[in-house]
Amino acid sequence: MEKIDNLKYAAVPPKDIRALIRAGKIDFNTSGMCAGYAQANLVILPKSSAYDFLLFAQRNPKSCPVLEVGDAGSKGLKIIADGVDIARDLPRYRIYEKGVMTGEYTDVSRFWRDDLVSFLIGCSFSFESALLDAGVPVRHIEEGKNVPMYMTDIDCVPAGVFSGKMVVSMRPIPHNQVVKAVTVTASMPRVHGSPIHIGNPSAIGIKDINKPEFGDAVRINEGEVPVFWCCGVTPQSVMMNSKPDFVITHAPGHMFITDIKNVDLKD
Amino acid sequence: MEKIDNLKYAAVPPKDIRALIRAGKIDFNTSGMCAGYAQANLVILPKSSAYDFLLFAQRNPKSCPVLEVGDAGSKGLKIIADGVDIARDLPRYRIYEKGVMTGEYTDVSRFWRDDLVSFLIGCSFSFESALLDAGVPVRHIEEGKNVPMYMTDIDCVPAGVFSGKMVVSMRPIPHNQVVKAVTVTASMPRVHGSPIHIGNPSAIGIKDINKPEFGDAVRINEGEVPVFWCCGVTPQSVMMNSKPDFVITHAPGHMFITDIKNVDLKD
Repeated sequence: MEKIDNLKYAAVPPKDIRALIRAGKIDFNTSGMCAGYAQANLVILPKSSAYDFLLFAQRNPKSCPVLEVGDAGSKGLKIIADGVDIARDLPRYRIYEKGVMTGEYTDVSRFWRDDLVSFLIGCSFSFESALLDAGVPVRHIEEGKNVPMYMTDIDCVPAGVFSGKMVVSMRPIPHNQVVKAVTVTASMPRVHGSPIHIGNPSAIGIKDINKPEFGDAVRINEGEVPVFWCCGVTPQSVMMNSKPDFVITHAPGHMFITDIKNVDLKD
Repeated sequence: MEKIDNLKYAAVPPKDIRALIRAGKIDFNTSGMCAGYAQANLVILPKSSAYDFLLFAQRNPKSCPVLEVGDAGSKGLKIIADGVDIARDLPRYRIYEKGVMTGEYTDVSRFWRDDLVSFLIGCSFSFESALLDAGVPVRHIEEGKNVPMYMTDIDCVPAGVFSGKMVVSMRPIPHNQVVKAVTVTASMPRVHGSPIHIGNPSAIGIKDINKPEFGDAVRINEGEVPVFWCCGVTPQSVMMNSKPDFVITHAPGHMFITDIKNVDLKD
């Protein structure tokens, strides 16, 4: 696996990173970029499915904390970022048709339709800089990898056509910093908030901690506890389960970087 | 005005209060009832308007913190209360047609349709018991009145067909307890959270603090500051402005009482 030193993008403004992405110069995962700024998961659906999905998000707020919903047909946003082309400003997209992934792209302009609605959903990447600020290590950033993400056996609350299992991300935390990791993330509910589980992967249906379904495995040291947070990849699990005709999402770990600072998500 | 001593209902379980309401024995405002339990504002709309309204709520979370959305056509709820008949379990309802209030009712069963969707929205009443627990006075409860509510000149963020001005509720707070009132309510974002304004009614477009648009005026003592919170009557302001064909809401102050404790809304 290619090791990417994303920390060099930690101090670059979001607008400049989005320009590099749009120009095709960044097509890898965004973990660690633009420290302090919220990153977002993306789900784009036809208007006909948008109500069910917005309701799904409302019923599953820790998995799907909605930061912004675009107007139907618009590639722009009004609240979390300026000058956006949502079809070009993420490093990688995936398209699912009837639950099957039919392609991965760095630009989805040619698939755009007048009935598409963009959902931007809070991302655990955006609390990682708060953890680092608090002195809590973030292993996959240290290792230059994508965060490990796992399917659980926890059912999301269904809404209309959407149902499926919860996906979680995992960070190994030293015993004596677990409480701090909880309190730091609990103060940020719009980016998944507090952990969903601490300690025992099998209690939430994870069979092998070394084999994440998405992202990369990371080292868990002696004296560290695996801590699990709800993950914005959950919508993809839901898409695979619910099989709508057409969906565009971000590729796991390849997020939309907003102009909103994480501290502004605390109110 | 009839003075109602709602404090005698403070220790009655929500289920029993809902039974009294359904039996027609309580048809007055619910302020102070079921201390510690969340109360909710109600908006019932046809499915054709439900997406725009859910999006409006997502874009205006301090005015419209959604606690639950029912399934289309269902009079029951799944999350915030058991055994509910949403058409009978509130003390008073209002019906608006094309923006005009066409009636006030204690039972709206005969208006029910298979395409109606119920939205339950967090209510500032439910943080009043937290204020009382913290030793902060709540004037309208002391005076046996409905909370004073005002139209402001603040525009909500529009969504689809819905737009309009923000409505706020007001409580006079002694100078030396204002900070405590902020911190107590800030920890409860699903029931409107922290105040939207402190101190100067004219700064948010309120012309006469003694003439609330909804509810009752209350006494403001020497040394007290008027503190304003976003109010779940905002949807009614929006209905009057946006004029959808058919809407059922609660009557101001006449709320749905849930089985959810306020402390469970803090996570």
